[in-house]
Amino acid sequence: MTLILGIDPGSRITGYGLIRDNGRVCEYVASGCIRTGTGELAERLNAVFAGVSEIIQTYQPDTMGIEQVFMARNADSALKLGQARGVAIVAGTQAGLGVSEYSATQVKSAIVGSGRAAKEQVQMMVMHLLKLTKKPQIDASDALAIALCHAHHQQTLLAHNLSAAKSRAGRLSL
Amino acid sequence: MTLILGIDPGSRITGYGLIRDNGRVCEYVASGCIRTGTGELAERLNAVFAGVSEIIQTYQPDTMGIEQVFMARNADSALKLGQARGVAIVAGTQAGLGVSEYSATQVKSAIVGSGRAAKEQVQMMVMHLLKLTKKPQIDASDALAIALCHAHHQQTLLAHNLSAAKSRAGRLSL
Repeated sequence: MTLILGIDPGSRITGYGLIRDNGRVCEYVASGCIRTGTGELAERLNAVFAGVSEIIQTYQPDTMGIEQVFMARNADSALKLGQARGVAIVAGTQAGLGVSEYSATQVKSAIVGSGRAAKEQVQMMVMHLLKLTKKPQIDASDALAIALCHAHHQQTLLAHNLSAAKSRAGRLSL
Repeated sequence: MTLILGIDPGSRITGYGLIRDNGRVCEYVASGCIRTGTGELAERLNAVFAGVSEIIQTYQPDTMGIEQVFMARNADSALKLGQARGVAIVAGTQAGLGVSEYSATQVKSAIVGSGRAAKEQVQMMVMHLLKLTKKPQIDASDALAIALCHAHHQQTLLAHNLSAAKSRAGRLSL
């Protein structure tokens, strides 16, 4: 049983999503967003750090996933996004969590099966996979998608390790 | 007497500089750089957070200044710089420091008297103003320049407040 925190960082809104992965299926635990307000930069970044830290303290996740950003619209928005992203990552590492990064393509592939899926498709699949009856806020939904991608990646790793172990065992029994 | 920490953040090297401002002159206290190594992103950002936090704990500065970034070479380098910058700012706010931002033009104007000064001119003036006999590493020198700019800004504010107080006192004595 692993509790996974997914984070979708943004300069104004940082989405978060928590799921419980029992190795076969994933259950919804919580999701929402941290709004950083309109104060000074230092205050806004502190709100991201305090928000992510509080979520970690409240739910005690085992691991954290965050979206990797390859392309930003321009240098200015990349800088702003980078600041929030760096702060969210450090809130995780300072709480002792391992932080894994996933590209948008990896997230879409894990959820919808295609790296080119539309944002709405991802959101519908997140609702379906986690049996949600209401559409989550978009940043929260993206964070849940990252958490699901992380779970998928862990399960794939586990399956890979299991099959490697079986094959080693197979060789040994010869 | 104010102890000022200047930070020049970077994705690979973050410079720091500490100066003591007695209201008339500024004295050199310490400077150096935090190298983040070549590990994973989360580790590197954690090194920035841990490094800035350690400097704050060791020297107990009263306030912190950091360079404002307007232009980055491209979106990718802006994202990387933003991550380190966000982490450095939050290390300050989490330690209870007020964090002020200064543009490169403000820093150059405060040190050399011209917002268009070359990097080398700034470095020479930092050495002159702080009576340094050796040239500091460039990121450390930039961090000292930011600290000096912060001191200059505070002194200007103080002078402004004093003259406003005097003018109020003048009005009162009429």
